[in-house]
Amino acid sequence: MARQGVTPRSEDYARWYTEVVQMAELADYAPVRGCMIIRPYGYELWEAVKAGLDRRFKETGHRNAYFPLFIPMSFIQKEAEHVEGFAPELAVVTHGGGKELEEPLVVRPTSETIIGHAFASWVQSHRDLPLLINQWANVVRWEMRPRLFLRTTEFLWQEGHTAHATAEEAMEETLRILDIYADFAERDAAVPVIKGRKSAQEKFAGAADSYTIEAMMGNFWALQAGTSHFLAQNFARAFDITYLDASNQLEHCWTTSWGVSSRMVGGIVMAHGDDGGLRLPPVVAPIQAVIVPIWRSDDDRGVVLEAAHRVTETLRADGVRVHLDEREGLTPGFKFNDWEMRGVPLRIEIGPRDVAAESVVLVRRDRDGKEAKSAASVTAIEDRVRDLLDAVQQSLLQQAAEFRDAHLHEASSLDELRDIVSTGWALIPHCGTKECELSVKEETKATSRCFPLDRNPEWNPSGLSCGVCERPALGYAYFARAY
Amino acid sequence: MARQGVTPRSEDYARWYTEVVQMAELADYAPVRGCMIIRPYGYELWEAVKAGLDRRFKETGHRNAYFPLFIPMSFIQKEAEHVEGFAPELAVVTHGGGKELEEPLVVRPTSETIIGHAFASWVQSHRDLPLLINQWANVVRWEMRPRLFLRTTEFLWQEGHTAHATAEEAMEETLRILDIYADFAERDAAVPVIKGRKSAQEKFAGAADSYTIEAMMGNFWALQAGTSHFLAQNFARAFDITYLDASNQLEHCWTTSWGVSSRMVGGIVMAHGDDGGLRLPPVVAPIQAVIVPIWRSDDDRGVVLEAAHRVTETLRADGVRVHLDEREGLTPGFKFNDWEMRGVPLRIEIGPRDVAAESVVLVRRDRDGKEAKSAASVTAIEDRVRDLLDAVQQSLLQQAAEFRDAHLHEASSLDELRDIVSTGWALIPHCGTKECELSVKEETKATSRCFPLDRNPEWNPSGLSCGVCERPALGYAYFARAY
Repeated sequence: MARQGVTPRSEDYARWYTEVVQMAELADYAPVRGCMIIRPYGYELWEAVKAGLDRRFKETGHRNAYFPLFIPMSFIQKEAEHVEGFAPELAVVTHGGGKELEEPLVVRPTSETIIGHAFASWVQSHRDLPLLINQWANVVRWEMRPRLFLRTTEFLWQEGHTAHATAEEAMEETLRILDIYADFAERDAAVPVIKGRKSAQEKFAGAADSYTIEAMMGNFWALQAGTSHFLAQNFARAFDITYLDASNQLEHCWTTSWGVSSRMVGGIVMAHGDDGGLRLPPVVAPIQAVIVPIWRSDDDRGVVLEAAHRVTETLRADGVRVHLDEREGLTPGFKFNDWEMRGVPLRIEIGPRDVAAESVVLVRRDRDGKEAKSAASVTAIEDRVRDLLDAVQQSLLQQAAEFRDAHLHEASSLDELRDIVSTGWALIPHCGTKECELSVKEETKATSRCFPLDRNPEWNPSGLSCGVCERPALGYAYFARAY
Repeated sequence: MARQGVTPRSEDYARWYTEVVQMAELADYAPVRGCMIIRPYGYELWEAVKAGLDRRFKETGHRNAYFPLFIPMSFIQKEAEHVEGFAPELAVVTHGGGKELEEPLVVRPTSETIIGHAFASWVQSHRDLPLLINQWANVVRWEMRPRLFLRTTEFLWQEGHTAHATAEEAMEETLRILDIYADFAERDAAVPVIKGRKSAQEKFAGAADSYTIEAMMGNFWALQAGTSHFLAQNFARAFDITYLDASNQLEHCWTTSWGVSSRMVGGIVMAHGDDGGLRLPPVVAPIQAVIVPIWRSDDDRGVVLEAAHRVTETLRADGVRVHLDEREGLTPGFKFNDWEMRGVPLRIEIGPRDVAAESVVLVRRDRDGKEAKSAASVTAIEDRVRDLLDAVQQSLLQQAAEFRDAHLHEASSLDELRDIVSTGWALIPHCGTKECELSVKEETKATSRCFPLDRNPEWNPSGLSCGVCERPALGYAYFARAY
């Protein structure tokens, strides 16, 4: 049962990430190339992500539905940009029920097309709008360089699809969802994000405009953690989603789509993890507090376990997700490391002296050494634990925000941008053209992450020129290495 | 907006079913042959099924995980009976990422193989057992004669997979899950079920023994509503799932698998529906109570809507899933029919006279005419609504149980069996051989549904011979037409 430590982040960040994901038993590679197995601890984290998002979607009037996994190849081909973007990543079913199919079926890479087809029959009149639908599903995009959670051939996600009467309403929805994503990321996942607009190069294939929340990982790379797309009438025209307006005119709808995937789990690992392993925010942690009983003699064992069970029951009754580690044959030190690796926000140690003093020792995962430890009376232990869990949640968000803010820099030239992106993100006036962005990528490996909304009160401001090519700038954009 | 009534069940039961599912907006056929779109109202019903089962699984120590959609063809072929059973139903991916694959990938029809492969690496010692895993997923089995929810090429389900040290523990698990399924069906879905063991002909391809819960639909047909399989060491041997026992001997595990699918939704439709449409049990109903405001004059409108909002808020605060139907331009009569079609358990009518009297009219979906109606004061309306919802839940279960029990008959010959299965289920001593069962099917279209556990205290009782072929009987079996 001896466990080696994880590779330090400073030595090899990619290796640290994969080791933490595997050793904490979040996920593992599957025998099918590019696919992963999400293990129970990782799936519980995903369930917490789902619950946090699903609640927010329902509170804003969205309803869940389910559409087919298989999409006729002809559907994918109806929107020109869409097929161009997704064709290289498709998995194709050619045989079913022992026969070759007349038309190959695509395993959905995303569902704008098949849902657009359904919307066309559901929407007749302006009274049917807005139509606000979400789907929790698996999708497949062939992946040549898989990374657990971050890029896998199959992944889990939610995809929202909405139809509206006007461009304004569709844009409002696009930004409302972006706010929901940011709210979830910051409040639940404790991951601070920058909301922004995607460049022409980085936007969704088929969207008029894509919006994103971008988070900084521990190696300064950016993770696109959620996207919300204003599709204009592109899919409504391709799939004939029309409605009769109040004056009986037939109009095309305006649609949106938006998604957050299981890569969010990878983002939580990389935004908070340290060289000891995971550090999970209490709101989404499968186990919020772990109790480690400590004894030497058999006499102590009974007394300590009895006290540990009492504390467990008290906390569980109070709604805390608590786990009592009763495993035999393992030292307390081993257990400490094990739960540290798994990122449990709070450890509760109970030994014979604690039982005698009617107290416990509490150890926060977000701090080190003496700063992490405190003693507490078992009387009203639930209040103390709640307070500490709140404190850990806040502190993880604050640490991540401070880390990020210390690594955001302004650049005014390609040389400055190149220097910055090895240890941070560069904010630079940018023209937004594909040509210029591709040249930056070739020279620096960095891509534009977004034009942050809070730094761009207007688009195409007069007098601002691109820091790289000197064409007129669309606005300020962050450039960074990205997953 | 005029809506035609649904085809009466007595006229054409299959048509009644499809019309109810489509008109109540539970689901619709998809543009991909054999697949369906689960619409929001149907998906909410499925979410209630999921919640009821998921809670029970977690309470008994099972944890959710997620395994790949794609399974290498070679995996499927490792268990001989398994591949024979599933080969004709497989969908096969031959191309991915623009290239032909070296080994074709099967879209999972069920996951014993890929999960067995994972279990082999997760289980080392007896301390890792039992391993209790569940997965919520989509699966694909090519379907030539699709029916919404009942038989579709893609469907949603949960599949549990567990590994144990001994045959006894695996059998206990198999039957524990069968009890969970029956408990869910009866308490939540209000569908009475018969627990039993499958015949050799009807068991899962690869199982040593399959157990089932069987429910009677409104046309006397049987619906297999959930199955739990004792896999013995079949998959453990095929995938090398072994453990070191306490004396350090290497042993193969004993495994189980079990599933309930979205066909449960079809079962709820057919067990309770009447010629007016759906009748949903309150525990799983997306909307438990609908409020229909009634007014003629504009003056009344304001007063009535105000009262309706108050009742809505009171019930919502009490945890009732309530909906206020404020649609304009529709008569109350149209709304009554509409919500009747959608099976909402309780309708609350509020008109000007009700407002004046500080009362409402309550109408139960499970009863007809005067028996369905009662008046209630708005004071403590939430208690009255809760009581009525409980009463509707109990009454639907009771009606279904009485209907079923009135159509269970004993048979002692093939002729009697043939007569019975046109309007019920026949219990007959049965040898359990494939040969005999296939001959019954050919002559009567009926198949063995199960050997009910409560009618078979022992297997192969001495002196009992098959009612059809006169070989020694395995026990008493129900025969019926089945979905």
